[in-house]
Amino acid sequence: MQRLDLELIAARLEGLEETVINRLVDRAQFARNAEAYRAGGSEFPDEPQRSLFEVRLRYQEEMDSRFARYRVPEERPVNGDLPEPERTTISHPAELAVTDYDAVNLSPQIAEGYLAFVPRLCAKGDDGNYGSSVEHDVLAIQAIARRIHYGALYVSESKYRESPDEFDQLLNRGDRGAVLSRIERPEVEARILSRVAAKVDYVQAQVNTRVRRIVAPEIVLELYRDLIIPLTKEGQLRYLATRPRERREPPPSAC
Amino acid sequence: MQRLDLELIAARLEGLEETVINRLVDRAQFARNAEAYRAGGSEFPDEPQRSLFEVRLRYQEEMDSRFARYRVPEERPVNGDLPEPERTTISHPAELAVTDYDAVNLSPQIAEGYLAFVPRLCAKGDDGNYGSSVEHDVLAIQAIARRIHYGALYVSESKYRESPDEFDQLLNRGDRGAVLSRIERPEVEARILSRVAAKVDYVQAQVNTRVRRIVAPEIVLELYRDLIIPLTKEGQLRYLATRPRERREPPPSAC
Repeated sequence: MQRLDLELIAARLEGLEETVINRLVDRAQFARNAEAYRAGGSEFPDEPQRSLFEVRLRYQEEMDSRFARYRVPEERPVNGDLPEPERTTISHPAELAVTDYDAVNLSPQIAEGYLAFVPRLCAKGDDGNYGSSVEHDVLAIQAIARRIHYGALYVSESKYRESPDEFDQLLNRGDRGAVLSRIERPEVEARILSRVAAKVDYVQAQVNTRVRRIVAPEIVLELYRDLIIPLTKEGQLRYLATRPRERREPPPSAC
Repeated sequence: MQRLDLELIAARLEGLEETVINRLVDRAQFARNAEAYRAGGSEFPDEPQRSLFEVRLRYQEEMDSRFARYRVPEERPVNGDLPEPERTTISHPAELAVTDYDAVNLSPQIAEGYLAFVPRLCAKGDDGNYGSSVEHDVLAIQAIARRIHYGALYVSESKYRESPDEFDQLLNRGDRGAVLSRIERPEVEARILSRVAAKVDYVQAQVNTRVRRIVAPEIVLELYRDLIIPLTKEGQLRYLATRPRERREPPPSAC
């Protein structure tokens, strides 16, 4: 079975951090703007129930779906019922064995967790910039979801390929706790958290504070610790639970 | 006449540089992908003439228009015939006197100049990531257009307010060259270029080069020198040419 390079996957995950951080810092330039999240507050005549945020997210995902974004495994939408892709070109076959994209899609939980986090990220109050706020919310959620799903899918596939027999046994026993201990790496989590905190300072070190609001590293660190890392692990468990078993014969006993 | 703080405007322009640079670096992670710009190559059944890039740009601008993006003076679309905003909320009255948004809209030239620049920015060849390429193209064009129009509109309004009589005279004479020498500040342009080059290095200093392509500072510097700065000046001239004159009486002669 071909090896999936775990170091390369880790480097790609690291590369997605800058995007997540930049998107969060972009959103933080606007106030909380609770009005943008009020159900029925979108002002779109055809959307009497949804908030402006919900309408923006749906419109963005409908557009992206037509451009075939969700053919990429790590790009998962929050909404269902999206239009079919208009394009047939597939960029690359993914080295994954996803049998059920709905089962590994954590984007609804990601959007919910992100929205709960906005009041920590942004300054109190209302500055009237609802359109910009929700535009950046959607870009931030997409960046976070890409990071979570990329980690969930590729890291667990890579780990599975290292020891398919061992994982098959744990998975066949349905022992979620044992699978989790097998895939958890607390030292990697600690390294991610300290690297993210350092990057948040770094990317803002040279900005002009007269016109840019600074985001404290602790805020982004919390998002990683309380949302991104736990949901990445949840996604790994879900991917492994639905991944086809290799069903290889047990290794011959030593003789 | 109220003063528009030129230092604050300059700081805002400086703050837009990071976004422009980040968007360019994001686009540079994909190859040139000439296929994405081929007329008729979009694969959208309803769009037999346009390229994938053109379709993406139009869809994005149609969505953004419905969300009232183009009510903000510095947000100018490339396409005409966009749907009306669904929202009536206006965030802030702009401190500008724009009489004709079409006259100050340089986005078509910005898109054209940007597309000519893509082969310098990106690695040769085709990696199949057409959807991601044009998604980032559109975000880059929006960031560049925001920078150019913000500079064009606010800097020239600020300069006008400093010396309305002098500008009225030059403008009434229709002396484009004289207006240009009055607004040009070569020392500011030089400072922008060296600051941008330094930022390009800075934002990429800590990236993992195994997974991220590095953009040379000279490339972005060229874009500023050959497209962003010249079009900002062109926009200043256009804004001033269409701005209502203060029509104040000539100052009383000293007596």
